[in-house]
Amino acid sequence: MERTYIKDLHGHIGKEVKIAGWVDVRRDQGKMVFFDFRDATGKVQGVVLPGSDAMDSAKESRGEYVVEVLGKVNERPGNAAKEGLANGDIEIEVLGMEILSRAEELPFDRETELNLDTYLDNLPLTLRTEKARSIFRVQASLIQSFRWFLIQKNFTEIQVPKLVGGDAEGGAEVFEVDYFGKRANLATSPQLYKQIMVGVFERVFSTGNVYRAEKHATSRHLNEYTSLDFEMGFIKDHTDIMKTTRDYLVNAMSNLKENRAENFALFNMEIPDVPDEIPTFKLIDAQEIIKKEFDEDCAGAPDLEPQHERLICEYAKEKHNSDFVFITHYPRKKRPFYTMEDEDDKGFTKSFDLLFRGLEIATGGQRVHDYKKLVENIKEWGLNPEDFAFYLQAFKYGMPPEGGIGLGLERLTEKLLGLSNVKEAALFPRDMNRIDTRLSE
Amino acid sequence: MERTYIKDLHGHIGKEVKIAGWVDVRRDQGKMVFFDFRDATGKVQGVVLPGSDAMDSAKESRGEYVVEVLGKVNERPGNAAKEGLANGDIEIEVLGMEILSRAEELPFDRETELNLDTYLDNLPLTLRTEKARSIFRVQASLIQSFRWFLIQKNFTEIQVPKLVGGDAEGGAEVFEVDYFGKRANLATSPQLYKQIMVGVFERVFSTGNVYRAEKHATSRHLNEYTSLDFEMGFIKDHTDIMKTTRDYLVNAMSNLKENRAENFALFNMEIPDVPDEIPTFKLIDAQEIIKKEFDEDCAGAPDLEPQHERLICEYAKEKHNSDFVFITHYPRKKRPFYTMEDEDDKGFTKSFDLLFRGLEIATGGQRVHDYKKLVENIKEWGLNPEDFAFYLQAFKYGMPPEGGIGLGLERLTEKLLGLSNVKEAALFPRDMNRIDTRLSE
Repeated sequence: MERTYIKDLHGHIGKEVKIAGWVDVRRDQGKMVFFDFRDATGKVQGVVLPGSDAMDSAKESRGEYVVEVLGKVNERPGNAAKEGLANGDIEIEVLGMEILSRAEELPFDRETELNLDTYLDNLPLTLRTEKARSIFRVQASLIQSFRWFLIQKNFTEIQVPKLVGGDAEGGAEVFEVDYFGKRANLATSPQLYKQIMVGVFERVFSTGNVYRAEKHATSRHLNEYTSLDFEMGFIKDHTDIMKTTRDYLVNAMSNLKENRAENFALFNMEIPDVPDEIPTFKLIDAQEIIKKEFDEDCAGAPDLEPQHERLICEYAKEKHNSDFVFITHYPRKKRPFYTMEDEDDKGFTKSFDLLFRGLEIATGGQRVHDYKKLVENIKEWGLNPEDFAFYLQAFKYGMPPEGGIGLGLERLTEKLLGLSNVKEAALFPRDMNRIDTRLSE
Repeated sequence: MERTYIKDLHGHIGKEVKIAGWVDVRRDQGKMVFFDFRDATGKVQGVVLPGSDAMDSAKESRGEYVVEVLGKVNERPGNAAKEGLANGDIEIEVLGMEILSRAEELPFDRETELNLDTYLDNLPLTLRTEKARSIFRVQASLIQSFRWFLIQKNFTEIQVPKLVGGDAEGGAEVFEVDYFGKRANLATSPQLYKQIMVGVFERVFSTGNVYRAEKHATSRHLNEYTSLDFEMGFIKDHTDIMKTTRDYLVNAMSNLKENRAENFALFNMEIPDVPDEIPTFKLIDAQEIIKKEFDEDCAGAPDLEPQHERLICEYAKEKHNSDFVFITHYPRKKRPFYTMEDEDDKGFTKSFDLLFRGLEIATGGQRVHDYKKLVENIKEWGLNPEDFAFYLQAFKYGMPPEGGIGLGLERLTEKLLGLSNVKEAALFPRDMNRIDTRLSE
């Protein structure tokens, strides 16, 4: 008999089916044994009635056993359907059960909230819980929405190298790689490549790992994370990038509402609405608001500190009913050399950060596209244009006004689901103390 | 006026539009100037008639200038449409032209075939040619088909770390990373992570960069490449993986035929048909065929050499009219510890390589899913199970029979388009002598 996926069982009510999956929960009631079975597509309850051929296997099995089950799909008595469970209205009457793979006794109760270290030390098991699975299903939806949205908007996907040569731009803390006896680094972003590729395809995106060798041990930092990047030509200014970012968020939240509502329910979190106009403040105006509303003086600082990001988000939520805030016009000298200065606001840039529920999740802006200006900036930043000769070719040969954004997938996931640490939003997080051994083939 | 994309011009015949893009070609005929304009979505011819306000800009501009053009969409006289050009049946009568960005004189004729080093040294410019753009549009289609096909089949996308701890498995040549004073490596594949994730989602895929520190300077090797990986539970054996791989290829080729036919026409290459059954030979049978048909003795070798891969592909093309060949049953000791032995063919494994037009493009198979057997194998391979404790957790707690594949995106692209070197199929290829400087932000 062909295997039926659990999500397709509704089409087989009254019929015999074969399902396969894991024992998610077993409840042994003596004469009868109840199961929740789990496969790639969902969960369903199973019941082994007295006298069933499956009783021996049912008695032997326990959590995480892998089984193949022959059974009949029955409508479920009572008001189980009203409990709102997916498949709450059906169950499998188990007629046969073959154990494909056994599991050791679990080292802790699946329902217990574990401390973060225990959780992370046991990921091959702890990722199997419904909550963890929900996190990474939401994450998959977010990255797929990103690509799909941009493909519809004539963006071309590019594969960007992460092994890059030479020293990194001053300031960035990078991981060093021994590249056949020469020094190379792990890329902190696909920035310069995606700019080059605007010259080729006009609109490009990439999704992939980037690296920061920051010695932070906070709930906000990962040393390896997934960056969602796009870059586009023929923009008016940075507000076109903000608009495209906003439109992506609308699309992504709508897909979550359609497909991942039950994952959010587990976390008691709401999928946010994205306003038509995300509240937008210049950095200095945000600093003034923070001072006026919260009596915290951060005027003149080149960036917002974490607590100030939280405050301005609190303000935007209260005054504009928005979980998202754009902060624009960071000072020129605190942004990279390629950042476009605002001619109408000298010393400040057409750059922005996107904050979401108190946390910076993305950075973007318009870039300098004029070759001469770019060379001047490189010098002004104390760097050597010769080192950037490859990159600069793109600007020598015709580059339109352009800009883009890099968005941290794990931070977006974290804040959507109200997690307390970004590490919970990375499958196998890397931090100063944590890097799995022996996990390269 | 809103900008119109070139691909949408057919909806505006007889009307005035604004387009924006690059000067792909300019042909100055004295009184009139002809252009090919290029944007993210296509190309179109433009003509500047005597007396047009655009004449000054038209005279000044040249290849790769970035322009905004105001013009009228006209049906094109004569039989231009029959030339088979996209947009060959329309042209823009240019009424105004604003130069947004200038380009230096190009360092070589765009139509000249460059030698590979010159091509690679000038990628920000050489990638702008129609041929290069075609390669990476085909590549984008292949990776997007991969994800889309698997999502339909209930696979979940996962983000896998590429920074991994400890020493790599014996034999593999890996890049070393200084990880806060400890040694880490760049992953050669997502293999062990995707296996862990079968325990979580049953069916998973990932797409991303992987790294091989091989000191090869051949037309077949890259030191950083894009690996398309899937892994799935509840398989009968390796043939389920081969079938899913075949079905992906059917889907991918069908998408190429639908959307990328003109890219293939540029290379005079045909998009291959994928047979219902891809010809499949055990390694020893392939070796016998090679001896019998081509008088080359490679019997007993643990793998096929490049020339033998070419010969068996030649044979499969001639006898079975297939561009694809599966080779199965590689000897156990030449495959990694997790490879499943064939109980009916002791000493040989339920593993396979996929060859395409003379080149190995993918490797896959069934894996050992039994915890005890896996521990035994690790010891037999001279490795220490304690080093694999994290990975082994997945098998301690219930793992179904499972397997998967890793497919090299660049090699598939290369052979589809008949390129002579895999480096042409990587946007910014990495090899022993080539790593861009200063391309991390």
